Amino acid sequence: MEELKAAIERRFPDAVADLQRYLRQPSVAAQDLGIEATVHLCCDLVGQAGGSFRVLDDCGGNPVVYAEFEPGPHGNPDRTLLFYNHYDVQPAEPIAEWTTPPWAAEIRDGKLYARGVADNKGEQVVRLTALQALRDVDGGLPCRVKFLIEGEEEVGSAALPRYLAKYRDLFRADACIWEFGGRDELERVSLVAGVKGMAYLQLWCHGADVDLHSSLGAFTDNAAWRMVQALATLRDAHNRILIEGFYEHVRKPTAAEVAAVQRLPYDGAALRRNYGLRHPFITEAKGQDVRIAMLYEPTCTICGLESGYYGPGSKTVLPRRAQAKIDCRLVPDMDPDDIYRKVRRHLDRRGFSDIEVELLEGGEFPYRSPIDHPFVHLCVQTAREAYGAEVVLWPNSAGTGPMHPFGQHLGVPIVSTGSGYWNSRAHAPDENVRLSDLKEGMLHIAHLLRRFSATRW
Amino acid sequence: MEELKAAIERRFPDAVADLQRYLRQPSVAAQDLGIEATVHLCCDLVGQAGGSFRVLDDCGGNPVVYAEFEPGPHGNPDRTLLFYNHYDVQPAEPIAEWTTPPWAAEIRDGKLYARGVADNKGEQVVRLTALQALRDVDGGLPCRVKFLIEGEEEVGSAALPRYLAKYRDLFRADACIWEFGGRDELERVSLVAGVKGMAYLQLWCHGADVDLHSSLGAFTDNAAWRMVQALATLRDAHNRILIEGFYEHVRKPTAAEVAAVQRLPYDGAALRRNYGLRHPFITEAKGQDVRIAMLYEPTCTICGLESGYYGPGSKTVLPRRAQAKIDCRLVPDMDPDDIYRKVRRHLDRRGFSDIEVELLEGGEFPYRSPIDHPFVHLCVQTAREAYGAEVVLWPNSAGTGPMHPFGQHLGVPIVSTGSGYWNSRAHAPDENVRLSDLKEGMLHIAHLLRRFSATRW
Repeated sequence: MEELKAAIERRFPDAVADLQRYLRQPSVAAQDLGIEATVHLCCDLVGQAGGSFRVLDDCGGNPVVYAEFEPGPHGNPDRTLLFYNHYDVQPAEPIAEWTTPPWAAEIRDGKLYARGVADNKGEQVVRLTALQALRDVDGGLPCRVKFLIEGEEEVGSAALPRYLAKYRDLFRADACIWEFGGRDELERVSLVAGVKGMAYLQLWCHGADVDLHSSLGAFTDNAAWRMVQALATLRDAHNRILIEGFYEHVRKPTAAEVAAVQRLPYDGAALRRNYGLRHPFITEAKGQDVRIAMLYEPTCTICGLESGYYGPGSKTVLPRRAQAKIDCRLVPDMDPDDIYRKVRRHLDRRGFSDIEVELLEGGEFPYRSPIDHPFVHLCVQTAREAYGAEVVLWPNSAGTGPMHPFGQHLGVPIVSTGSGYWNSRAHAPDENVRLSDLKEGMLHIAHLLRRFSATRW
Repeated sequence: MEELKAAIERRFPDAVADLQRYLRQPSVAAQDLGIEATVHLCCDLVGQAGGSFRVLDDCGGNPVVYAEFEPGPHGNPDRTLLFYNHYDVQPAEPIAEWTTPPWAAEIRDGKLYARGVADNKGEQVVRLTALQALRDVDGGLPCRVKFLIEGEEEVGSAALPRYLAKYRDLFRADACIWEFGGRDELERVSLVAGVKGMAYLQLWCHGADVDLHSSLGAFTDNAAWRMVQALATLRDAHNRILIEGFYEHVRKPTAAEVAAVQRLPYDGAALRRNYGLRHPFITEAKGQDVRIAMLYEPTCTICGLESGYYGPGSKTVLPRRAQAKIDCRLVPDMDPDDIYRKVRRHLDRRGFSDIEVELLEGGEFPYRSPIDHPFVHLCVQTAREAYGAEVVLWPNSAGTGPMHPFGQHLGVPIVSTGSGYWNSRAHAPDENVRLSDLKEGMLHIAHLLRRFSATRW
């Protein structure tokens, strides 16, 4: 480990310079900004680290970069680890709120500030540098290493499942390291072994061609009222979701998964304080552990409502239309299309067939690696050893990401670990990483690769 | 009647010129535009028509103009008719949608176009011209005539009840003619003998200090959900309002009032077509006559809803707040403050004491003249005679106006009649009146005054 640390220390200045070069190239998928140049630079970095690459662009969307690194002379050619990264980043707006420009990649007080540094260009450079340090020390890699680096993670990864289906042999691996992770507010290292899925529904109710004088409300129906009445059928007072069959495919957490949750940090009072929450947790009425709900329960929340007049003061109008946006966070083995159909049927059966429902962006499936898989244990153990810190394993994130097609097409266990920290501000102005975290991340990846090469399952 | 017609014909060019002068002076209460100059002009018109006036300004708000016309030598000094008008007008915006400028008061094809011509400066000039024509023919007025001309009708008439309370002796009268009326799509003349009241409620739910990542919806409550759930308790599937005690003070229509409704024109299919209504009338499920509902039933409608994200596509946010705007149209003897208190209590009892409720603009009481009052009959009869057309009496309007303080402080029957028509576009661009309607309106007012002076009740 000490030799690896020294090798990383030697490589570090060049790695930071490479990362700055990568960051100074904007690559905003949502704005179609700099994609081609970024793909080029991404391949450069792979080549410079000694890998071969292919640019895949025959399944639509922005190109997917495939990279491969051969095992060294003493390495195990039968073990393959796959890294998932993305070269696209969030838009930099609002630019005025950045302390230094989002594409300047400046270093201040031991932190590197840039759009995409934490999410997710920094992780790619960390991983490539770990490979180089391993070669410096061991004369070669301990196993085969592959990368899938996509360019649409920030806009829903719509094409990704097609690439994974078509190139499943190319991407074949024994395990996968996901894109994010880092240290929480108490400097504990968080690992994640799954994500929730998503069915995001757009609802419309159209009542009339025009907004009407509200006096007509004595006999005409009202789009806002219908929407409220339809939505009210979806949930009871205790937040139990009433959509027929909603819970049908919810996989009960195993004893091991429930036990894993007991070890998770949780401070309800701090949450209430930090966010200024006014209401009791909805888990209270159900006698539920907040962490169990967070990880293993699906949700059905309203993200937005709009109808009629909502400016200052009064306007006596009968809204011609109403809209609602609903997101359902899904757990294994729920299916976004199935949930869409169940919402549709639920509304139809209650007389709301006039309410239009659309599943936006096709939905995402949930994914959860088996919590007792040897790879999950390995990642926790190597993190403890490399960081020398407390490690927290989240059986899955409460958030969403395109893990499911990896599991579906490659059948691999997936764990997410990375070099962010609690104030990395992904998606926000002043996104940043601590340089010390990058170094530790490199060490963890190198250590993990060594240990992974000796496993078998 | 023929002599009156001839006198009106002679007076008409000057009356139109006066009206144009009055219209070319903007007087938008909502924008505090031209109020002082308009009060001056309004008094000029009164003086020119032979009346005395007082500008009352000691109860707040824009000044109220009091005008008085003495009975002639053969007139009845014991009979007084009060006219209610307002010199303020709606804003002219959107100005680009006017064919000719809103303050130009141009005449095209026998119509006079200007902001406020129908609502309500034209009515004032019609009435003043009728008085002059009566004097031309009869040598004096048949009774005493008063005017109350206020300047805040378009912004809620908040100060008006105070002026009526303080100056009740000054405004004392035997009956009152309200500000609006005219011919409908079938050229029938509509009279109105009452208005609904209004309790306009602003609701807020605050859930957190900031919008949250929607993954937290697994355990935190959601302002949009709470608002939907609270609103859903206010109404059942058949639009029966569930607020406890909401119907408590609803005065049942008398047999005469129900009979009056049977005579009202009604074409449900045309309504559905004109507005593009998608849903069945909510009166159907209750087996109710649409006209009964329109005139004699209170409403509780949603005018607006807003929460979280409602732009294109998806945003996975847990809204920190939600708002709703609700208007309740009230019938006698409902009280807007009482309705506000009942909504508050209703929500409190159902666990929604966190939802803030505010009664906007203080509310307006409903008012309905007794349908069989001799003055109501008189107005219908004189309209038939003056217009020679079918006359439709609406026991009350489905809309709202400040009639109640007139009833409360002066104890007078009130009927609304005016010179508008079905395409007058009050509150909209290209507001206009037909010159022929102005002449007929003058004749009706003059005829009504003659007949009124001989009544007793």
